[in-house]
Amino acid sequence: MNFCSDNVAGVAPEIMDAIQKANQGAMPSYGADAITARVEQRLGDLFERRVWAFPVSTGTSANALALSTLTPPYGAIYCHPEAHIMVDECGAPEFYTGGAKLVPIAGAGGKMTAKDVAHALDNARAGDVHHVQPAAISLTQASECGTAYTATEVGAIGEIAKRHKVKLHMDGARFANAVAHLNVTPAQMTWQAGVDVLSFGATKNGALAAEAVVFFDEELAASFGFRRKRAGHLISKMRFVSAQLDAYLENDLWLKLARHANAMARDLVAGLKPIPGVHLLHTVEANEIFIRLPLEIVAGLRRAGFDFYDWPGAAPGTIRLVTSFATRAEDVAAFIGTANSLAKAAS
Amino acid sequence: MNFCSDNVAGVAPEIMDAIQKANQGAMPSYGADAITARVEQRLGDLFERRVWAFPVSTGTSANALALSTLTPPYGAIYCHPEAHIMVDECGAPEFYTGGAKLVPIAGAGGKMTAKDVAHALDNARAGDVHHVQPAAISLTQASECGTAYTATEVGAIGEIAKRHKVKLHMDGARFANAVAHLNVTPAQMTWQAGVDVLSFGATKNGALAAEAVVFFDEELAASFGFRRKRAGHLISKMRFVSAQLDAYLENDLWLKLARHANAMARDLVAGLKPIPGVHLLHTVEANEIFIRLPLEIVAGLRRAGFDFYDWPGAAPGTIRLVTSFATRAEDVAAFIGTANSLAKAAS
Amino acid sequence: MNFCSDNVAGVAPEIMDAIQKANQGAMPSYGADAITARVEQRLGDLFERRVWAFPVSTGTSANALALSTLTPPYGAIYCHPEAHIMVDECGAPEFYTGGAKLVPIAGAGGKMTAKDVAHALDNARAGDVHHVQPAAISLTQASECGTAYTATEVGAIGEIAKRHKVKLHMDGARFANAVAHLNVTPAQMTWQAGVDVLSFGATKNGALAAEAVVFFDEELAASFGFRRKRAGHLISKMRFVSAQLDAYLENDLWLKLARHANAMARDLVAGLKPIPGVHLLHTVEANEIFIRLPLEIVAGLRRAGFDFYDWPGAAPGTIRLVTSFATRAEDVAAFIGTANSLAKAAS
Amino acid sequence: MNFCSDNVAGVAPEIMDAIQKANQGAMPSYGADAITARVEQRLGDLFERRVWAFPVSTGTSANALALSTLTPPYGAIYCHPEAHIMVDECGAPEFYTGGAKLVPIAGAGGKMTAKDVAHALDNARAGDVHHVQPAAISLTQASECGTAYTATEVGAIGEIAKRHKVKLHMDGARFANAVAHLNVTPAQMTWQAGVDVLSFGATKNGALAAEAVVFFDEELAASFGFRRKRAGHLISKMRFVSAQLDAYLENDLWLKLARHANAMARDLVAGLKPIPGVHLLHTVEANEIFIRLPLEIVAGLRRAGFDFYDWPGAAPGTIRLVTSFATRAEDVAAFIGTANSLAKAAS
Repeated sequence: MNFCSDNVAGVAPEIMDAIQKANQGAMPSYGADAITARVEQRLGDLFERRVWAFPVSTGTSANALALSTLTPPYGAIYCHPEAHIMVDECGAPEFYTGGAKLVPIAGAGGKMTAKDVAHALDNARAGDVHHVQPAAISLTQASECGTAYTATEVGAIGEIAKRHKVKLHMDGARFANAVAHLNVTPAQMTWQAGVDVLSFGATKNGALAAEAVVFFDEELAASFGFRRKRAGHLISKMRFVSAQLDAYLENDLWLKLARHANAMARDLVAGLKPIPGVHLLHTVEANEIFIRLPLEIVAGLRRAGFDFYDWPGAAPGTIRLVTSFATRAEDVAAFIGTANSLAKAAS
Repeated sequence: MNFCSDNVAGVAPEIMDAIQKANQGAMPSYGADAITARVEQRLGDLFERRVWAFPVSTGTSANALALSTLTPPYGAIYCHPEAHIMVDECGAPEFYTGGAKLVPIAGAGGKMTAKDVAHALDNARAGDVHHVQPAAISLTQASECGTAYTATEVGAIGEIAKRHKVKLHMDGARFANAVAHLNVTPAQMTWQAGVDVLSFGATKNGALAAEAVVFFDEELAASFGFRRKRAGHLISKMRFVSAQLDAYLENDLWLKLARHANAMARDLVAGLKPIPGVHLLHTVEANEIFIRLPLEIVAGLRRAGFDFYDWPGAAPGTIRLVTSFATRAEDVAAFIGTANSLAKAAS
Repeated sequence: MNFCSDNVAGVAPEIMDAIQKANQGAMPSYGADAITARVEQRLGDLFERRVWAFPVSTGTSANALALSTLTPPYGAIYCHPEAHIMVDECGAPEFYTGGAKLVPIAGAGGKMTAKDVAHALDNARAGDVHHVQPAAISLTQASECGTAYTATEVGAIGEIAKRHKVKLHMDGARFANAVAHLNVTPAQMTWQAGVDVLSFGATKNGALAAEAVVFFDEELAASFGFRRKRAGHLISKMRFVSAQLDAYLENDLWLKLARHANAMARDLVAGLKPIPGVHLLHTVEANEIFIRLPLEIVAGLRRAGFDFYDWPGAAPGTIRLVTSFATRAEDVAAFIGTANSLAKAAS
Repeated sequence: MNFCSDNVAGVAPEIMDAIQKANQGAMPSYGADAITARVEQRLGDLFERRVWAFPVSTGTSANALALSTLTPPYGAIYCHPEAHIMVDECGAPEFYTGGAKLVPIAGAGGKMTAKDVAHALDNARAGDVHHVQPAAISLTQASECGTAYTATEVGAIGEIAKRHKVKLHMDGARFANAVAHLNVTPAQMTWQAGVDVLSFGATKNGALAAEAVVFFDEELAASFGFRRKRAGHLISKMRFVSAQLDAYLENDLWLKLARHANAMARDLVAGLKPIPGVHLLHTVEANEIFIRLPLEIVAGLRRAGFDFYDWPGAAPGTIRLVTSFATRAEDVAAFIGTANSLAKAAS
């Protein structure tokens, strides 16, 4: 039973069906097909306004391509030090932007505060040629620590961005989980809070390999098509990527899948927290749990066949548990049961 | 009936099945799964030696990533002026290599000759800091004009490359079609002829979105993993890309699909060539046909519902027809029939 | 006696004096000094309008930095196949622009015609994501072949640029020589003919290491300061670069130096042309002469101690002679005399 | 009286003389002249071994070009958070390396400790494709805080570098000042302590615009010539840059100039430290002083005509004073005298 990541899961059945259904005869390539058009329409409905949406295959390319439209090569992008774009993309943003600099703004629980962002921007020396020029802020929703920004928190950062004339990007690899947790609308979570472009993630939440870069500003979107092709991210048989997004959006499947993953996470937390010596690092507001367990329990869980990552840079015994649309209640129960048994045995 | 491109076709049933079959529960991500390992093994068997193989989703990224391992930023890559990497990738090679220069070497039928390549390299002013430094040659097999290099022709270019200490890349978007036509082994066509790295294409020949970058040199392959991730081309649920390649290679499916596409092309040619006023631009050695038809026939075919591209930069009436694994004999017959009727009517 | 290039010459005395004079005590750095301000003013006077001028040290950086403001990374820059930016800068434009593509437009005598530029732009497939997007045209004045575009010819290309919404850059490494030859005003030669930015060269015409990138459009100039610093081309003790430009512009020194170099070239041509077997490749409209001499004369001139480059890619015996502000009449006379003696001896 | 920076000073007379002397007739360009050859020889003598030395015009380009030879685009360069390459070069290292990431390692007084560097490298996840790969360490000597690494401290970092197979770069913009302070040999300070390449600075210490990138490893130096030209940093009339370095190295002028600047700094410190409310931020081991003075003294000094920068990010009243080869004892005395008067008046 694998709690390593949401990307060890397979594909949600509705989405796999859609991929198959899309395999009927010839269809225009490079996004000129009807499914792709329908997806942009659906996204417009979902966000309650006109959007410019571009399917791609990975979250890393969604982020890096989006950022490349927001900053000149000599720009600065502000993000949390644990942001995926900062730590886990092997420098993809630097590659795609022509060398822009990622400037870290620390914050508890993986979230930047508007106050700290404002402070950084106030002291950025904009206009001084010796210094990279503030260009964009990127926040991850839900954060890499499994927490979620409220719409108000996003809006506060959006205000700072507007005041300083920088753009705001949202890395929504786990956007669904955040929205499911907070019970706000996608519009309230994004453009109404000042977000200019969103990496709308689906892969971690049941798709095979599909993300949409969603622009809320036509001008910003203007160069994206060229950049995406130039990066080799324009899928020729795009109908099959769009089919995934189409099914993902139909009947709010995206929300259902995320709600399930979140519920599984909440159940895990409920079952583990009472154990003596167990300590949660961050509040769990999505589908990632960062938790410290006594070392013998960690070892015992592994011996019992459970898979999860140790979390580096934290106290020994700190692990990360990730649930997904595919996590079964019985797996969660088994994990909790085993942990509790090990705890009893140790006491 | 669509003859625009081989990427308007869907996915071969065997490959779609494999994608579905791979959707069984959790599996390690980022290529650590068993299917991915099996694919590299299969490719080793296919090429009769140890290879280092990396699945990606698009031909453009396969080419650009491969080239990025072969040249420094101040390097020169020699290719045909009509090469896909030169004309149709929106500068992807330049992006991935940090600005290397693509130097055109013209040649009839889309193929460079060893003599012309040698001449260019002899006059390249290697060592002179004012000039980009020869780093690699890239040839497309089958070429963008639908012709195929013989193994001997590739070998001659391979010799030049070795003599000048530059690397040799093969863009094999339609590799299968070339091998099917020539009846040589993949080994004879590639590393035994001096090829250092191959973009082994599957998407145009029945896959959904899958290509493998195949290295025949371990040192060259060393940086690829980092570059692929950095470019956002490391698919997290990679089992689903590998599953496509796995089915593609099983029981020589790749050759069967290509043989069919080639046969359909040959039939088209046979049925069109006799028509008065019809002129083939290049010999047809794969699945692409460049052919000039009388204007009224072109118009009539369109009115009858057939789809194909006009070919720019050539005499009016020049079109391109592309067959694929999905092309049905009756479509070919219908096309031929309609063309002949239009010809009769016109006479 | 060295006719290899105008950069084997030293520095004009007026300019060396100015460098020395500028060495008086402390002065603000990075261009905040009064000499730098005066230079921008002088350039404004010279071009009869407000300009935005940035001193740099080399022609290559002037060109590459200018081009980097004109094109996105996925852009195309049109230039002559023998352009310095195409052939002699080791890919500097590609480096600075993030991989834009240089597209060659051939033309006799090193000059592109408006007709050919228009044809290329008309067929550029602007808007098609598979293709690099037309962004700029770069012409060299005087050309690499020693010819000069008339103001009318520049204007015609300027019209094409405007019609296609691309920018026009002028590489003026030998701008002075062209203006001296044509007897037009700098304004007529540049912005009045549609030029957006000029690499105003001084190094080849008597300076130590000084060029000015002159913008005629404030918006285009906006990012230059950052790009220049980022490239390491913001000279900290900039007064010493500006002092060179200041003296260069004072009392039309730039024109005087160029007129002299041009005159020396004309004298050389007059003395060599009558020799049997001598053939001029291009009309001489600046300070570069491309000329074919009988092989024994070439060899004899070398034995006599004259230095010049053989010109590759042309018939044997083709050499390039370059005069400069420092070329003395007696050197020219000696060259002519020796050549004629050798000719007589051979006959 | 300007204490803003060492680059507001002019040029040392010996160096200006050398520039003039080099202006005698024609000389080969692009570094093929005898002065340039002599400079590499002198540097070899100075560092007591064979070196590969490349003159350039600015410290920023020296650093960025050097770093570009040490790291792949997906690499990481470790440096102090206040390093010039991190803060003051508008992202030049990112530009030149193709987007490598600068990873900060904090340390007191602007210096990294071997222990912290080792810790960072041990946890760098080398080999994991999701992470930028450790490639180089860059330390500034003397540091941006005006302190100097001892040869032992450099050697300890050199050991770490070797153990982790990363390269070591030294930004020696104020190398002379550090060597003058420490009284070690250049060899002991650099290659004998594990440094692979040094940005040997001269501009801040009396030159007009001259730095030398000095390699102690021939292989690393191999691509530099191409990269320098490609960056537009190959000065055509290079004799004039080399003449500066030639004079700089002759008779240990470089050390004399630095010793003077250091002495002036020490005198300033001696005269200011006793004043009540005065606090030195860092020990002064070169020619930069970071000092906090009571606000009225700062204001009074400015009213009296002294120029210096407020230092941001520190307590109010913190300023930076920089001395140079051109700082006169009377300026120092005047500054001290004025400060003391203001202090008396305030008490």
